[in-house]
Amino acid sequence: MRRIKLTLEYQGTNYCGWQQQDNGISIQAVIQDVLKVLFKKKTTLYGSGRTDADVHAEIQVAHFNAETRMTCFQLMKGLNSLLPRDIVVRAVEDVTTDFHAQFSAIGKLYRYTILNRQFPTALNQPFCWYIHHDLDVEAMRKAARLLEGEKDFTSFRGANCSARHAVRRIDRIVINREGDYIQSYFIGSGFLKHMVRILMGTLVDVGRGLRTPESIEEILQAKNRRKAGPTAPAMGLCLVQPFYDQEEMCKRIEEFQD
Amino acid sequence: MRRIKLTLEYQGTNYCGWQQQDNGISIQAVIQDVLKVLFKKKTTLYGSGRTDADVHAEIQVAHFNAETRMTCFQLMKGLNSLLPRDIVVRAVEDVTTDFHAQFSAIGKLYRYTILNRQFPTALNQPFCWYIHHDLDVEAMRKAARLLEGEKDFTSFRGANCSARHAVRRIDRIVINREGDYIQSYFIGSGFLKHMVRILMGTLVDVGRGLRTPESIEEILQAKNRRKAGPTAPAMGLCLVQPFYDQEEMCKRIEEFQD
Repeated sequence: MRRIKLTLEYQGTNYCGWQQQDNGISIQAVIQDVLKVLFKKKTTLYGSGRTDADVHAEIQVAHFNAETRMTCFQLMKGLNSLLPRDIVVRAVEDVTTDFHAQFSAIGKLYRYTILNRQFPTALNQPFCWYIHHDLDVEAMRKAARLLEGEKDFTSFRGANCSARHAVRRIDRIVINREGDYIQSYFIGSGFLKHMVRILMGTLVDVGRGLRTPESIEEILQAKNRRKAGPTAPAMGLCLVQPFYDQEEMCKRIEEFQD
Repeated sequence: MRRIKLTLEYQGTNYCGWQQQDNGISIQAVIQDVLKVLFKKKTTLYGSGRTDADVHAEIQVAHFNAETRMTCFQLMKGLNSLLPRDIVVRAVEDVTTDFHAQFSAIGKLYRYTILNRQFPTALNQPFCWYIHHDLDVEAMRKAARLLEGEKDFTSFRGANCSARHAVRRIDRIVINREGDYIQSYFIGSGFLKHMVRILMGTLVDVGRGLRTPESIEEILQAKNRRKAGPTAPAMGLCLVQPFYDQEEMCKRIEEFQD
């Protein structure tokens, strides 16, 4: 029995999210169906974590167990020939059985993309939140500083979030204007359901001048979802990568400057 | 009567191309329909040139005549609220009646995007040609040098091309590897039907080692479409911009380095 690690890339637009659900086709289910075709046997795929409907992944990591003589390269080619065009296998590796895509993950990096100008985009529409209001990036950065560190993020977790507690560590939030786009990077130990999107919706409120940067402290202290801003649209969110190596994650955190 | 210049951005995937045709919905027709709604009058839209089905535009320029009291900003907002998401108006300007989107254009810049690695892309699939073969970019550049200048491009024009003659001037072809992508820029006085795609298909043959860079001379001299390479897929092609100002175009040519 081999344990095999998949590195995946996907566009979330056409799916109900990573996780198998009743209300649509999930990315996990599509890949499991292809694994079943390939191995003639039901195969369970474990991801590093869920992503919502419409959320994309540049790098998502998953694993499964299988008995097969196919090489990793053959598996990659075979999977890509059977998968739909919006799900791609970037790499296939044999790993030891102590590797678990979810439980071995020590952190994650997400990017949220805002298009900020007077007209929308025809070429990048499924990958960004279009906002025509002026946004004060400096104020958003000031607010972001107050979200960094280990904190109780109860005010920033979505309804029905099943996590046992809401304490998470955000190592760094970086917000940069790049032409007409505002790119925000969130790197941390892990994120609650809808957490990055609620953080982003609240930071945009600050950017629009609807809240002060300092109001973040009150929101955190309130431990009440209603005190935070709206949930930003899913389409602007992308899982850039999960981390499995402390050194790699620290290096990435150090690189980040806004 | 005002003459109005539109600066457009579009994704070509869902259309039969710029030009109105019987076999599908064209970008021109969609915008004309919206102008008709806005002005309650049939309005003809003139573009800088046609683009094929599946070809995109970062900047396409078009003009029309209309009697309206709407400001340019109101026109932009109104058009964008009525247009489908894959066609966007970037700018609206009043111009003098001697401006003609097609006949005033002095040149065009196209970009062709190749994804060159062992696995396709889930996030950028409608915007590139996926090639897993090794490509020798240095050889492609050598071949590109031989295509620059004023030449008879009969060997590189598609069937049914309606242009009176095939002499065109290519000012510069720049080919650069950027990570897993190979970006090729074509800047010149104008391009025949399918010309950029046939040039690209031929350059890829050179990159794969199926032709020598020097073979370009023979292909040009043959004045025979069959001597050139295949027509590269439309989806990798994007009109970056048409030029209406000599100085701006010269500046862009000088900027280009590979």
